Amino acid sequence: MADVTSTRNFEISAATGGVTAPLGFTSSALHCGIKASASALDLAVIAADAPSSAAALFTTNLAKAAPVLVSKRHLDRTHGVARAIVVNSGCANACTGADGLANAERMASETAGPLGCTTDAVLVASTGVIGVGLKMDKVVAGIRSATASLARGKGAEAARAIMTTDPFPKECAVTVNTSRGSFIVGGTAKGSGMIEPNMATMLGFLTTDAQVAPSLLKRALTESARDTFNAITVDGECSTNDSLFALASGASGVVIDEDLYPALLEGFLAVSRDLAIGIVRGGEGATKLITVNVRDARTVDDARQVARTIANSPLVKTAVHGADPNWGRILAAAGRAGVMFDVDRATVRVGGVLLFENGLPHDEAAPQAEEQLKKSTVQIDVTLGAGRAEATIWGCDLSAEYVRINGEYRT
Amino acid sequence: MADVTSTRNFEISAATGGVTAPLGFTSSALHCGIKASASALDLAVIAADAPSSAAALFTTNLAKAAPVLVSKRHLDRTHGVARAIVVNSGCANACTGADGLANAERMASETAGPLGCTTDAVLVASTGVIGVGLKMDKVVAGIRSATASLARGKGAEAARAIMTTDPFPKECAVTVNTSRGSFIVGGTAKGSGMIEPNMATMLGFLTTDAQVAPSLLKRALTESARDTFNAITVDGECSTNDSLFALASGASGVVIDEDLYPALLEGFLAVSRDLAIGIVRGGEGATKLITVNVRDARTVDDARQVARTIANSPLVKTAVHGADPNWGRILAAAGRAGVMFDVDRATVRVGGVLLFENGLPHDEAAPQAEEQLKKSTVQIDVTLGAGRAEATIWGCDLSAEYVRINGEYRT
Repeated sequence: MADVTSTRNFEISAATGGVTAPLGFTSSALHCGIKASASALDLAVIAADAPSSAAALFTTNLAKAAPVLVSKRHLDRTHGVARAIVVNSGCANACTGADGLANAERMASETAGPLGCTTDAVLVASTGVIGVGLKMDKVVAGIRSATASLARGKGAEAARAIMTTDPFPKECAVTVNTSRGSFIVGGTAKGSGMIEPNMATMLGFLTTDAQVAPSLLKRALTESARDTFNAITVDGECSTNDSLFALASGASGVVIDEDLYPALLEGFLAVSRDLAIGIVRGGEGATKLITVNVRDARTVDDARQVARTIANSPLVKTAVHGADPNWGRILAAAGRAGVMFDVDRATVRVGGVLLFENGLPHDEAAPQAEEQLKKSTVQIDVTLGAGRAEATIWGCDLSAEYVRINGEYRT
Repeated sequence: MADVTSTRNFEISAATGGVTAPLGFTSSALHCGIKASASALDLAVIAADAPSSAAALFTTNLAKAAPVLVSKRHLDRTHGVARAIVVNSGCANACTGADGLANAERMASETAGPLGCTTDAVLVASTGVIGVGLKMDKVVAGIRSATASLARGKGAEAARAIMTTDPFPKECAVTVNTSRGSFIVGGTAKGSGMIEPNMATMLGFLTTDAQVAPSLLKRALTESARDTFNAITVDGECSTNDSLFALASGASGVVIDEDLYPALLEGFLAVSRDLAIGIVRGGEGATKLITVNVRDARTVDDARQVARTIANSPLVKTAVHGADPNWGRILAAAGRAGVMFDVDRATVRVGGVLLFENGLPHDEAAPQAEEQLKKSTVQIDVTLGAGRAEATIWGCDLSAEYVRINGEYRT
């Protein structure tokens, strides 16, 4: 847990467990045979005990994978109700034509059967290599086995089953205490390469036992993703499969209305921020988390654009990797972001150390900044002197390991 | 020379020499002491025998280096007339405040003195580390020595003196034969990191002995740069110092009017294309030149945007580096370029081998494409099925060497 936030009429505290921490959810994960290694989990089902409110955000890439198209269609038909998520790793089922669509539908129907719900009540997600078809005999056998062994307390296995090149699983849960009772928000996510808003090769699944209408759930998901999952970047890529799902079981009995909406949003933000930062920390070849804060911008969009350009700059990323306090590259990235500001009124700080101000460097502070750059978490602060808006983007360094992973991933 | 083009009423052929190949130009280059190694040239003067028409394009980065601001001012004052270019490598004189501006002016005035022209008739360029001041005693001594030893036939030394991490010097010249006589276009350029339109850490100097009015020279420079220097990318970065200068001495006696303008433009295009491709081939850590052709786009801007997104994609660049025929990454990059097209109508070819069509892969052709990817020049062709416009962008692969160079450049 990164944060424990407290505000007016509710309180958030860390909870144990991940996507099955909220009441009303079970999961199951196993190796069905998509990944080569027999010890590698590659299929998971996350199920609600009863029909639940559901919301989703999908990749903005024009090349949308079959599971994205199928999940979208299902949610449209049910107007925001779902019973389960079925997900596989190792194969993205993207650019697979009509067969791919049929296979994604089949994943849903095979999950729906044992659960006794309609196919439309199942959301589907896939992650892995593009352009390769699913081995459906293995997937179907896996789904039958997984739906027969659903249980609480197995969220950690689901977190492992959605990994591709992720170096570690990501899960998180918080308890939100309100004057009208407490509810839990849990979640799991995977990332690694192709991480860039909006969504990237990212899968994220949030659950809560609060009772939330589908429209309010969609609003909480959209607003929380904006400053978390959509504020991270590993390599500026955006994939064919990115999906973020939220399910609300209502099992806690706490009903979210406009009064309690801020509590739900904070719960979503806390879990999503933790998972999103985990995605960046686990980015392909990443050795350092870079937090880029841009302040005093004219608008929030300006601040985001400058922060994103800095976080995506290969020269900034390699400089951080090499612990080089090269503020010039940070300033040059800001200067090409397409946002108007006066360079002479801008400041650049690395690890809190002021390196550029009034159009001039503070080179005497470089050794101090270099020390900060050797840490595994690096903060870059830029002020633009153009207004009062601000934004934060999380990124990571660029290492030779990223090149190795992505030069050898498929062949 | 990449091309020998012939069209209606003129003919272009390769010529020897670079920036001093056209009549009316001399140059001199030496080691003045900015770079550590005594054998490394770091200062050059390129001079015209008499006042010449001049035009320039500069970086679009908000953080403009002192030499950019000074050269801009000089050209504005003279309305497009110059006598010389003075350039140093090893120090960008960027983010150096009032001292930096004074130093850039001093470089111009020290060059103007011996040549007997006004300070405004000298253009200034610098490339190297940002935020470090010039050692002016060494630079001034260097300029005095260089202006005393100007000669023809020394263009190759100027090409070496502007290099930073460039692995080889870049120069080119062509003879343009027209019905009204022949003229020469020559040039030199440096690139390496931070290469992305519009301009990047790129310095380019074109010369011609055609007689051209400043306005027509500017037009030829702008139009030729669009499809050459502004159609290349190494890492998507755009620097503080990028400058492209053109000088026309008129010494050939061939007067460029509207009738002969196409001949001048083709000469500029031929030299610029050769230099621009040289910049990409010499990109930091680059082992392969990638030519991305996008066809059947709705507009040229759409085609450029898709081609640029593919050429800048870290996942495409690493796949090419590893000779992985991963068409899925190419399609995913196209799909996130912000341009509307129907993925099912798109095609992807690598090295001329069709890998994706009608929404489906041609995996049987992958081994053939892999062979093509092992070459030092790789062509990626994408058709969008959305119109008739097309564009080409040249880029390079991403290697562990890029990370090494940029993680260790300054420290």
